[in-house]
Amino acid sequence: MEVREYDAQNYDVIVVGAGHAGSEAALAAARMGNETLLLTINLDMVAFMPCNPSVGGPAKGIVVREIDALGGEMAHNIDKTYVQMRMLNTGKGPAVRALRAQADKHAYHQAMKDTIENQPHLTLRQGTADRLLVEDGACVGIVANTGARYRAKSVVLAAGTASRGKIIIGELMYSSGPNNSQPSNQLSLDLIEHGFKLRRFKTGTPPRVDGTTIDYSVTSEQPGDQEVNHFSYDTPDSVYLKDQISCWLTYTNPTTHKIIRDNLDRAPMFSGVIEGVGPRYCPSIEDKVVRFADKDHHQLFLEPEGRNTEEWYVQGFSTSMPEEVQQKMLHSVVGLEHAQMMRPGYAIEYDVVEPYQLRPTLETKILRNLFTAGQMNGTSGYEEAAGQGLLAGINAGLRAKGEAEPFILKRSDAYIGVMVDDLVTKGTNEPYRLLTSRAEYRLILRHDNADLRLTQRGHELGLISDQRYTKFLAKKAALESELARLNSVRIKPSATVNAFLVEKGATPLKDGVLASEFLRRPEVTYADVCQFIPAPAIELDRRVIEQIEIQLKYAGYIKKAEERVAKLKRMEAKQIPENIDYDAINGLATEAHQKLKKIQPETIAQATRISGVNPADIAILSVYIEQGRIAKVTG
Amino acid sequence: MEVREYDAQNYDVIVVGAGHAGSEAALAAARMGNETLLLTINLDMVAFMPCNPSVGGPAKGIVVREIDALGGEMAHNIDKTYVQMRMLNTGKGPAVRALRAQADKHAYHQAMKDTIENQPHLTLRQGTADRLLVEDGACVGIVANTGARYRAKSVVLAAGTASRGKIIIGELMYSSGPNNSQPSNQLSLDLIEHGFKLRRFKTGTPPRVDGTTIDYSVTSEQPGDQEVNHFSYDTPDSVYLKDQISCWLTYTNPTTHKIIRDNLDRAPMFSGVIEGVGPRYCPSIEDKVVRFADKDHHQLFLEPEGRNTEEWYVQGFSTSMPEEVQQKMLHSVVGLEHAQMMRPGYAIEYDVVEPYQLRPTLETKILRNLFTAGQMNGTSGYEEAAGQGLLAGINAGLRAKGEAEPFILKRSDAYIGVMVDDLVTKGTNEPYRLLTSRAEYRLILRHDNADLRLTQRGHELGLISDQRYTKFLAKKAALESELARLNSVRIKPSATVNAFLVEKGATPLKDGVLASEFLRRPEVTYADVCQFIPAPAIELDRRVIEQIEIQLKYAGYIKKAEERVAKLKRMEAKQIPENIDYDAINGLATEAHQKLKKIQPETIAQATRISGVNPADIAILSVYIEQGRIAKVTG
Ligand SMILES: Cc1cc2nc3c(=O)[nH]c(=O)nc-3n(C[C@H](O)[C@H](O)[C@H](O)COP(=O)(O)OP(=O)(O)OC[C@H]3O[C@@H](n4cnc5c(N)ncnc54)[C@H](O)[C@@H]3O)c2cc1C
Ligand SMILES: Cc1cc2nc3c(=O)[nH]c(=O)nc-3n(C[C@H](O)[C@H](O)[C@H](O)COP(=O)(O)OP(=O)(O)OC[C@H]3O[C@@H](n4cnc5c(N)ncnc54)[C@H](O)[C@@H]3O)c2cc1C
Repeated sequence: MEVREYDAQNYDVIVVGAGHAGSEAALAAARMGNETLLLTINLDMVAFMPCNPSVGGPAKGIVVREIDALGGEMAHNIDKTYVQMRMLNTGKGPAVRALRAQADKHAYHQAMKDTIENQPHLTLRQGTADRLLVEDGACVGIVANTGARYRAKSVVLAAGTASRGKIIIGELMYSSGPNNSQPSNQLSLDLIEHGFKLRRFKTGTPPRVDGTTIDYSVTSEQPGDQEVNHFSYDTPDSVYLKDQISCWLTYTNPTTHKIIRDNLDRAPMFSGVIEGVGPRYCPSIEDKVVRFADKDHHQLFLEPEGRNTEEWYVQGFSTSMPEEVQQKMLHSVVGLEHAQMMRPGYAIEYDVVEPYQLRPTLETKILRNLFTAGQMNGTSGYEEAAGQGLLAGINAGLRAKGEAEPFILKRSDAYIGVMVDDLVTKGTNEPYRLLTSRAEYRLILRHDNADLRLTQRGHELGLISDQRYTKFLAKKAALESELARLNSVRIKPSATVNAFLVEKGATPLKDGVLASEFLRRPEVTYADVCQFIPAPAIELDRRVIEQIEIQLKYAGYIKKAEERVAKLKRMEAKQIPENIDYDAINGLATEAHQKLKKIQPETIAQATRISGVNPADIAILSVYIEQGRIAKVTG
Repeated sequence: MEVREYDAQNYDVIVVGAGHAGSEAALAAARMGNETLLLTINLDMVAFMPCNPSVGGPAKGIVVREIDALGGEMAHNIDKTYVQMRMLNTGKGPAVRALRAQADKHAYHQAMKDTIENQPHLTLRQGTADRLLVEDGACVGIVANTGARYRAKSVVLAAGTASRGKIIIGELMYSSGPNNSQPSNQLSLDLIEHGFKLRRFKTGTPPRVDGTTIDYSVTSEQPGDQEVNHFSYDTPDSVYLKDQISCWLTYTNPTTHKIIRDNLDRAPMFSGVIEGVGPRYCPSIEDKVVRFADKDHHQLFLEPEGRNTEEWYVQGFSTSMPEEVQQKMLHSVVGLEHAQMMRPGYAIEYDVVEPYQLRPTLETKILRNLFTAGQMNGTSGYEEAAGQGLLAGINAGLRAKGEAEPFILKRSDAYIGVMVDDLVTKGTNEPYRLLTSRAEYRLILRHDNADLRLTQRGHELGLISDQRYTKFLAKKAALESELARLNSVRIKPSATVNAFLVEKGATPLKDGVLASEFLRRPEVTYADVCQFIPAPAIELDRRVIEQIEIQLKYAGYIKKAEERVAKLKRMEAKQIPENIDYDAINGLATEAHQKLKKIQPETIAQATRISGVNPADIAILSVYIEQGRIAKVTG
């Protein structure tokens, strides 16, 4: 029987898919005051983690802090539900330091669902979006599998890996969303109908093993930090978790690699079964063994899936080998000789929207008022998804409110900006993952200063409460006044000062120096400085002190980066009119002409980042625009 | 590509499906010392409650206590995870009193999974059983979808509603297990191939609504009990939950009923879409409105789905109406005028094994060493499933250990016995649910004495620890010695005693009476008696006191019931040989002949309960057996 359509409720914003992207999108839109619907296939999968039970790490951890500074939820949610917290790369510079937490994945899901349920203006509902409602080139709503026709001023799609999802374990292959959930099979067909170009990507996950069958004694322990840290700038230090759960490190070995090589003919990755392109930076173990044939071991981290479960995640062991082979591979690893595999690893193939079809707001170029976010834009990772979700939710929210000015994050503003610019400018041939190396201004895009970079904007959007904003301003003021003070107080070459320096192995002072200069010395901490100057008027928060140290010690590098950013900003200011007719520009190289037409960059700066667009092309383009001869009349 | 089969591990017992039946079956088998595999489609659905978030109630609550006394897990698990506890029918006799708890359904799943994970000899694994391994008429294992061939000495199937499951919401229908999980589509085909008769049943669930949109003020509160109660005899009173969550009572009304009647042409129940037979005792609301056309309202209980969620379950509102109609129905209810529906209700159709194909051990008659349990045997309800699971697990465990003697519960032993006897003797034309009216000895099968009835047997099976058994024996001894004392101490007609009786509105004593007789008076409690006799040597537990009161006050009725049981036991003792040849018995009525051949009762008592088998047939059968002319030679 045909499902009968009916007019269900109207909303300002509709978000499809309550994964990591959709949850942020919906919360942001609702917090901006829009009546928002969040529709998802299964309410028991809200903000579900189908892969690693962790949040953060290099680049990703910075995204979580950016989300927090903009008023998103991910940082709060992990702060409520982690079982281990660790600062990575503490020995390295501040740009690559990274906070990472192990999540209790069920608690994570539950906490996010609870937050969504209690968010005013937000309705969470189970259902599957099967097609878009489109009028005059604009998306005006969606139709669910139950026949419900929901209309809205803007729509965000965040379908993750569910779109025509296919699970693959060796020769076994079946239609499924992640974690054996229902896939979404109709929406892709509808997108294609509307002219969207889709492609197939794949990602994979490792087997889970029974912790009671692991021999931890032959692996090495990775405990959580004693030192307090949180993702959210808002989380009080007092709630830092005492009772953390350790992870454990072990390795693959030549036997593991031999088992894999002996079974490559059964590996879907290599036998031609998998059509989708996999993530280079999160490769399967079979991929690693083939690509790095000379390495005789790879790290494996054993990570708990939660506090009340014995399931353990074998990080680094992602695989779509047949179950039989997976079990053998596991048993070859030290510590896992007798490990019971509770779930086999698997690969999943799914549809993504080619991201060159998107604007920097994540609105699609094909249908107005339609935004896409998360894994369906070709990325991989919860944080990448959440960052996009927040951006798309904000822009969908602004659109619904009739605001003309969109919300765009530049490459120099945030990692989220880097990611979105990469996606819409360069597209991606494989699941895209954020890496610190993707950011040219990474000394500016630090995890410690995300609040300084973005809280202001979060507040302007209405996503940061006045109360939090006031607290933020106080922090900023404390920071500035203390920096000013350190730039005026002098430290004299007294006997105590020089004794201190000598003890630290540093050269003694000959003349007096500013406290700020003194602190710039690598051996010296803020606490040291305080021994030699009066105490500040008010006691400073540990995060203000951290900021002072970083800003002073890295001042030179930061200044250079800022100069480059300023230059970029001038280029970003040079808008390319939307109705430009590239066919009318003489002299563009063929490749540049094609790429510009396809990607439709919004600024000269963005145009310069398109591969195949050369400085000569940029010069021609700039002159053309400056002469004002921009376009044929558009119909 | 064809999935390649491989020899995976061998076990003593394999259990397929980790629902309520499978969880008990696997725990029991493992606790008896069998190496046990529990294979299930999705580890995130272990002991999942797809319908009402509650355990217990009339008859069902007694099953939970029986499970506990036999060393099963359900009682422990709900005692760990309830959010409200209530004793129902406190104003009525002890046979129909019933404990009922609201569960935090996610916590319930997690706690059971954790218990299973930590159970020695038990391996929990994700996978789907696609077919049986059969040799010489015996089941010797199963093959999973991944190609794993697991062998075992006995196998329990507990597939629930997943077998060729189909979800139906109005005109929408799709292949799915409960709660949008993956269905199991192969195993049914394999069972048919082996000669099993399957049929289609259906069950349904109501919509869930957002608690933040309910107007509780116009409904009436149903708080939990102050008085301490637990399901497990083992749970200490000290952990009784203080901070309970209330339920709320509201009603349907003529408007609701009109909406339903106006849309009956779209109701899958009536439009012919649903082929499966639904549960009479858990009907959908559309069913109730049609069947009880003169009733102008029906009770609806609003029940929380857990502590950390705003989802509420609308008990009594089960429906498979189109989503559009469901929403209207909801909005017509007082308190739900503005309720947001978070998930629509749905019906699910699934395969069941006709239970006449089973023995009282739940072993199938068709394949030796194969047992089935739970919803797939045609029942409905978590407790019914768990009770069968425990029984099947025990018998599969005994078989694997080579024990000749099976474990059978008679109708007079336990509600579980009543249920299993009903199923295998009478079959069922609709999802079978336990009711107190099904038990002819219900004054004996009380919830308060399940431990006295069954702990001994649980201990013999190795499912009740020595420690717990010792505690149980102490309780029994205390009970018996206090009963003996009350049967010997006398209360004299003193002034205080008679003043007390007069105040209670009872007739004063003329002569002295035994304390036990005194207590038998309806107005008198054990505490009252204690005012007039010396205190017992040791302080008695509240449960011992409860037992004393019930046993004394209902002594007459209990004695009569026990006499009937004794008679039954004599009939149960009359075994019908397994190789009896009904074709060789002259004089049986045609219907009796057919039914006896189909059902193959194991005792004369069971034969008497088969509908269509009359006393005359029983007489002929008895004579035939007593004459020893029992069988043709069997090949
Ligand atoms: C097997 C597997 C392995 C992975 N491995 C890695 C890894 O190694 N490293 C890494 O960084 N990331 C990995 N990921 C990716 C990570 O899970 C995702 O990046 C992240 O979950 C994406 O978030 P999202 O919100 O975009 O999508 P999802 O979290 O997938 O959420 C999408 C949601 O939308 C719902 N939905 C889809 N279609 C519809 C529809 N039509 N109507 C209604 N609802 C719909 C889905 O049911 C789902 O709830 C893996 C994912 C999977 C499944
Ligand atoms: C929509 C719905 C409404 C219901 N309404 C009511 C009601 O109103 N009243 C009531 O009393 N009861 C109701 N129930 C029934 C209640 O859910 C069941 O009685 C109970 O869950 C049965 O327990 P079970 O263990 O037999 O099966 P389930 O709890 O269904 O567990 C079976 C498990 O086996 C797994 N499985 C199935 N096939 C395979 C396979 N081939 N290989 C591996 N694993 C497999 C499944 O994935 C599942 O985890 C309802 C159930 C549903 C789904």
